Amino acid sequence: MASGLFVTLEGGEGSGKSTLARALDEALSAAGHSVVMTREPGGTPGAEQIRQLLVCGDASRWSAKTEALLFYAARTDHVEKVIRPAIEAGQIVICDRFSDSTMAYQGAAGGVPLDELKQLHALVLGDFKPDLTLLIDLDPDAGLARTQERDGSEARFESKALAFHKRLRAAYKELSASEPDRFCVLDGELPPDELAEIAISAIERTLAE
Amino acid sequence: MASGLFVTLEGGEGSGKSTLARALDEALSAAGHSVVMTREPGGTPGAEQIRQLLVCGDASRWSAKTEALLFYAARTDHVEKVIRPAIEAGQIVICDRFSDSTMAYQGAAGGVPLDELKQLHALVLGDFKPDLTLLIDLDPDAGLARTQERDGSEARFESKALAFHKRLRAAYKELSASEPDRFCVLDGELPPDELAEIAISAIERTLAE
Ligand SMILES: Nc1ncnc2c1ncn2[C@@H]1O[C@H](COP(=O)(O)OP(=O)(O)OP(=O)(O)O)[C@@H](O)[C@H]1O
Ligand SMILES: Nc1ncnc2c1ncn2[C@@H]1O[C@H](COP(=O)(O)OP(=O)(O)OP(=O)(O)O)[C@@H](O)[C@H]1O
Ligand SMILES: [Mg+2]
Ligand SMILES: [Mg+2]
Repeated sequence: MASGLFVTLEGGEGSGKSTLARALDEALSAAGHSVVMTREPGGTPGAEQIRQLLVCGDASRWSAKTEALLFYAARTDHVEKVIRPAIEAGQIVICDRFSDSTMAYQGAAGGVPLDELKQLHALVLGDFKPDLTLLIDLDPDAGLARTQERDGSEARFESKALAFHKRLRAAYKELSASEPDRFCVLDGELPPDELAEIAISAIERTLAE
Repeated sequence: MASGLFVTLEGGEGSGKSTLARALDEALSAAGHSVVMTREPGGTPGAEQIRQLLVCGDASRWSAKTEALLFYAARTDHVEKVIRPAIEAGQIVICDRFSDSTMAYQGAAGGVPLDELKQLHALVLGDFKPDLTLLIDLDPDAGLARTQERDGSEARFESKALAFHKRLRAAYKELSASEPDRFCVLDGELPPDELAEIAISAIERTLAE
């Protein structure tokens, strides 16, 4: 039986992840693939409740370590109930953020040693990881400006200082450099349709492997 | 400066932990100690919100692994914001449940390997542990019968099968046997005032050390 594919989308606030996810869902479905679109934190009823604790309220509400544990609680539920079953059923799972977000936000940008986060990942999910990670790289000023036009009810991370978002971009660059085979880095300045085209080629290359 | 004391209360459902905690608070305060009474999961506004996710709803709502992560998220917040600052200020902290509950409920009784839970504890809290743990040992039939008289809004763990509660009692016995210096095992059949008397002697012995 054909095994599915696990694709994650990563990048800073307003870099265009959700826009790209929708375009990929549409294009891959039109091409006859069975696609599961999901997001983190969230993707299951329980994980969506944990999401509310994470994305709302004061920026200083939780320490970065507590945050990492909440993210992994939500992630475990999501992987067990949605992601793994879909991959095993041969579907393409497109997930808007996954563990690289924890490494970047709570790790390099948030201050938890990356090594501890990797240990947490291994303890909880073993060697489970995406087949392909599409990282949208964009200057944080540009990304945050794009998000200004939206409703602010989930703006807890956006409300952090610009310095945090600059560390975040650098952290994502390091993560992608350390696993060049898994990551495909996209230029967030490109228009949405060009981004989608490059992303679909990358997914098709990974499917063909 | 004198460092405080960290005392935890453990045992199955309805074994008498909260009743003993109240008696200890009263007696130690009357003896002139500065006491902080707290409980898990909970003890901070954030951790109490995580508590709601844990103690309410279907028994099968979360896997034991997801539960363990939620407990450690709540515990980290609690230790950082309440427990450690109080101990450093020289107070006696009495905590109704702590990490031994995770080892017993999600570990031996819930199916997560104890070794993984110990790694999680070490990763998150290092070698931080109670100075003294009072374990109230009681037959689960007796404990569950006592809880029947209460309001059922937080009964998620109570609702698990009796076999779960039997494994729980055995798990607590093993934990206490593996760290006999930290544990003081109390007979839950004793009347509340006798339990409190034995517990206070144990606390005073630990304080004197
Ligand atoms: N390639 C792009 N070029 C210009 N604008 C874009 C592009 N992609 C998305 N946008 C716009 O930027 C805003 C943020 O996009 P989107 O919600 O997709 O970002 P995001 O990365 O999902 O943000 P968040 O991190 O907050 O979830 C939206 O208004 C969207 O229309
Ligand atoms: N030593 C005791 N002997 C008999 N009954 C007791 C004793 N201690 C407590 N009880 C009664 O048993 C019931 C449960 O007690 P308590 O709430 O203290 O248990 P608990 O261990 O905190 O329970 P839970 O695990 O649900 O929090 C209460 O009705 C209480 O009055
Ligand atoms: Mg988005
Ligand atoms: Mg109680």
